[in-house]
Amino acid sequence: MPDNFADRLLAAIKAKNAPVCVGIDPVYNKLPAEITEQKDLNDETDSEAALDAVLEFCRRVIRIVTPMVPAVKINSAFFERYYWEGVEAYYELIQEASDAKLLVIGDCKRGDIGSTAELYAHSALAEPDFTDMDSLTGPDAVTVASYFGLDGVKPFLDVAREQQKGVFALVRTTNESADVIQNARFENGQSVAELVAQQVTLWASDPSLIGKCGYSCLGAVVAAKDREQTLRLRSMLPKSIFLVPGYGAQGGKAEDIVPCFKLDGTGALITASRSVIYAYEDMKYVERFTSEWDKCIEQACKDFISEVNSVRPS
Amino acid sequence: MPDNFADRLLAAIKAKNAPVCVGIDPVYNKLPAEITEQKDLNDETDSEAALDAVLEFCRRVIRIVTPMVPAVKINSAFFERYYWEGVEAYYELIQEASDAKLLVIGDCKRGDIGSTAELYAHSALAEPDFTDMDSLTGPDAVTVASYFGLDGVKPFLDVAREQQKGVFALVRTTNESADVIQNARFENGQSVAELVAQQVTLWASDPSLIGKCGYSCLGAVVAAKDREQTLRLRSMLPKSIFLVPGYGAQGGKAEDIVPCFKLDGTGALITASRSVIYAYEDMKYVERFTSEWDKCIEQACKDFISEVNSVRPS
Repeated sequence: MPDNFADRLLAAIKAKNAPVCVGIDPVYNKLPAEITEQKDLNDETDSEAALDAVLEFCRRVIRIVTPMVPAVKINSAFFERYYWEGVEAYYELIQEASDAKLLVIGDCKRGDIGSTAELYAHSALAEPDFTDMDSLTGPDAVTVASYFGLDGVKPFLDVAREQQKGVFALVRTTNESADVIQNARFENGQSVAELVAQQVTLWASDPSLIGKCGYSCLGAVVAAKDREQTLRLRSMLPKSIFLVPGYGAQGGKAEDIVPCFKLDGTGALITASRSVIYAYEDMKYVERFTSEWDKCIEQACKDFISEVNSVRPS
Repeated sequence: MPDNFADRLLAAIKAKNAPVCVGIDPVYNKLPAEITEQKDLNDETDSEAALDAVLEFCRRVIRIVTPMVPAVKINSAFFERYYWEGVEAYYELIQEASDAKLLVIGDCKRGDIGSTAELYAHSALAEPDFTDMDSLTGPDAVTVASYFGLDGVKPFLDVAREQQKGVFALVRTTNESADVIQNARFENGQSVAELVAQQVTLWASDPSLIGKCGYSCLGAVVAAKDREQTLRLRSMLPKSIFLVPGYGAQGGKAEDIVPCFKLDGTGALITASRSVIYAYEDMKYVERFTSEWDKCIEQACKDFISEVNSVRPS
């Protein structure tokens, strides 16, 4: 039996000295020309060609970042874009990243009432339970919606408990328009996101979910938008590891992420997606590596880790 | 160019005199023995056999209800359960229901930040834009999460506007534990669900989304849990058609749905899933039709429509 997901994640972060995760959000028209100019991959209007190109790129990205990071986050939307073939590719990539000993977070943000969430928990998180699919691996963790309350999250927690997996419940998202809902305030000054956090901390504190490290396998997606709120959420969610999206392209900066960590430097997994995987569009890297796109990604990943480590409490 | 989704839905409801929708939520172990005892379909542990059985059942259900209802709601979770093959089956069913001239609501509850929601809007709602998929049809409408605010919904609205499709944003869900979040109250007495409704009504009121009937192609998922709140939500969302889940199995009763309608009898599409598609487990129908499961479903669907029409304002 493997360890609790929180223990596995903390150990992996420590082993690579990198509390980060690279987000795999591939879109065809941003792929390197080296890939999209290949025969059979050079037609964005053909789903098979486009998906093959995307998959080739993702495999390369995973190989580049594997020595440096403990985890990757694979965003389901970017694969569902290619319908069922894309979904198959999503599971293929989970398998490949898993084979490379990376922890894999499936970013699928599923949410529904309990009986339906149970189905999602099985397909999105659990190890496949069909005899003809025994070679398939599920991800180590997934993101889930919180708006349904406990009913929608519990089936995922049941899988997490039984299969030593992780769940990250959406608390605070990076996008601007989310504020109207997530930052609306109750009479006591609490925001809707904080109310959700209060629920998440109740669920996360179930002793059967807590690892040796003291963290729960139920973490929280927390965008580091506003220092005061991030500090409050950090103290409200003592048992939850934060999956922090939006570093780089979504506007997150190194100073913003500081309050996502506890004073001992644990408690957060900072995610950068576009700023790493499309680093070959960033003049800073192009000037140095010209068309060697893989070297741009490698350097951007190194820089990302250094930046995070430079501000991480210790 | 077809009409605005709201116009199409209202016309279809009128034509069949049935403001209802049958929810397709198939699980293998509830399927009729006639199907699961068939060779090649009689193995729940084999994903292919199980999915083939599920698909066979769903096709039969669609054929049974087609003469009676204007729309079906196909729940993605029940197909994703079978991984990518299940996703292919989901699209096949959308196609079949569409060929039968039913309006099809894809119940997938996707939600993410804007750039990612754009991808979901394409795969989950839009007509496929790949040259090798031009025979595929998207659903007429989908359900979407609201917790991200406008960013997460706008890409779906853009598709809805361009392709005359519909969107139902989650406002109030049927499950009990949702109350902790959705029913939390602000100082002015407004609940979180009502705050979300306030946003949805802002988005829905965009003139480019409004049909000739006066309704917007942005509707709302509203569980009819509590008469007072349903009345408030109905008056807060004058331009939105309510997709009302939970009739029957989730505890909804005829009297609860009355306030989902406007006084002219429009404005709501009542959904029953389990109480119709598994009617052959209900003694009321078994006593009458014994093992003729299709007749049980047919009668349950008729009864459902009669019950709804008997309380619908007119």
